[in-house]
Amino acid sequence: MTSQGATRQPKYQRIADALRKSIQAGEYGPGDRLPGENDLMAAYEVARMTARQALGVLQNEGLAEARKGAGVFVRAFRPLRRRGLQRLAQEQWGSGRSIWSTDSEDRELVVDQIDVREEEADDRVCDALGITPGTQVWARSRRFVLDGKPVLFATSYLPSDIVADSPITQRETGPGGTYARLAELGHGPVHFREEIRSRMPSADEADRLSLATGTPVIRIVRTAFAEDGRAVEVNEMTLDSASYVLEYDFDA
Amino acid sequence: MTSQGATRQPKYQRIADALRKSIQAGEYGPGDRLPGENDLMAAYEVARMTARQALGVLQNEGLAEARKGAGVFVRAFRPLRRRGLQRLAQEQWGSGRSIWSTDSEDRELVVDQIDVREEEADDRVCDALGITPGTQVWARSRRFVLDGKPVLFATSYLPSDIVADSPITQRETGPGGTYARLAELGHGPVHFREEIRSRMPSADEADRLSLATGTPVIRIVRTAFAEDGRAVEVNEMTLDSASYVLEYDFDA
Repeated sequence: MTSQGATRQPKYQRIADALRKSIQAGEYGPGDRLPGENDLMAAYEVARMTARQALGVLQNEGLAEARKGAGVFVRAFRPLRRRGLQRLAQEQWGSGRSIWSTDSEDRELVVDQIDVREEEADDRVCDALGITPGTQVWARSRRFVLDGKPVLFATSYLPSDIVADSPITQRETGPGGTYARLAELGHGPVHFREEIRSRMPSADEADRLSLATGTPVIRIVRTAFAEDGRAVEVNEMTLDSASYVLEYDFDA
Repeated sequence: MTSQGATRQPKYQRIADALRKSIQAGEYGPGDRLPGENDLMAAYEVARMTARQALGVLQNEGLAEARKGAGVFVRAFRPLRRRGLQRLAQEQWGSGRSIWSTDSEDRELVVDQIDVREEEADDRVCDALGITPGTQVWARSRRFVLDGKPVLFATSYLPSDIVADSPITQRETGPGGTYARLAELGHGPVHFREEIRSRMPSADEADRLSLATGTPVIRIVRTAFAEDGRAVEVNEMTLDSASYVLEYDFDA
């Protein structure tokens, strides 16, 4: 045991610690370029591999991200604010606005990869909707892209016996979207449950959301309930954690 | 370009894909031991490093975790369910129960590393509480441990001018905790805002929560508001994402 605990740390960790402190102190702000491998090699008298490992630590922590050929930059976190309760308030979708519109504020969310299909519900969806295995559901998938960067993809499942022949089975559901149509069908949602988890992405999810190294995904599963207590929709969302802050406001 | 895209993947990725499929198909359930390096070397005719890399992929994705000397196991996800709204309902803390008690169901949450101190609020806390920089606040820190595993640590900040000389400045705040005491002081919370993010942990956070590789943290910042609109507490929580599901239930 030496008297200085720090000397037992590998060199690349000590360099990473110093850079992290500088970021936290604001010496390097969001979007700033960090010292490159050559700078770190000269400043700390270390080998290139050590400098590279130090920068790798910050990337794995999601504090910095590499841009090809340009260096390693402090990650800018300018998230979308997703307000859980306001965005689903009846006034919102009741007046014909998309439930997503409150997310983007002054920024434009573009929807792509829309896919609408009827299929047999798998066990997980059956459990969530309280239907018997093998029941037919309509599945609506889409992805949301902000400033050219995909930030969320989602698939929502609705029982076929409720939505068959309605615009919910079309790509364009019309003003107010799915919830306004459900209301017209006599199954308007009056209650929601959102369940939130976070984990590392699969390779496929990282690819669909163009995630930088060290970026978890947030998973939200929302279930919408009608007046009679029936679950009328379950929506599985996968969010780029570096693009979102979730906000829930509620009274005691 | 070959006709089979899969052949362009590195071998360790193909082995990881096969193991992942087996996990998803339920061939290996939560807590099951995955084939070891020797098994994979024999089954796929690969070098030890390739087998190790394949198992590393699943650990980085958080699907599996290494136990020293015992092998690599499918991660069991038996999370605490944290109900955002019910747990802060006035009936809950109004009747003298801890707001944490609903989390643990049949499992016992142990509190440790309690620290209570007065300090100068930093800029972030000042912003959240709407107080001028340099104002004194009481900071209450603690960690929660479930089944021997730390799952959450939190620091809550309260303006000194409200809580001075009250039990909130003591380690034990008494029945109903901080919110019941705030109510007695005439500053009971009537509204809450929770903001949720997810990111990879710092080395220090990974250490405090004994996080396995590939485990993000969830950050929750809760602000409590009194009847007059004043922010009376801000609480910064850091959660092991593998130990929690957050749930928010609300009406349309």
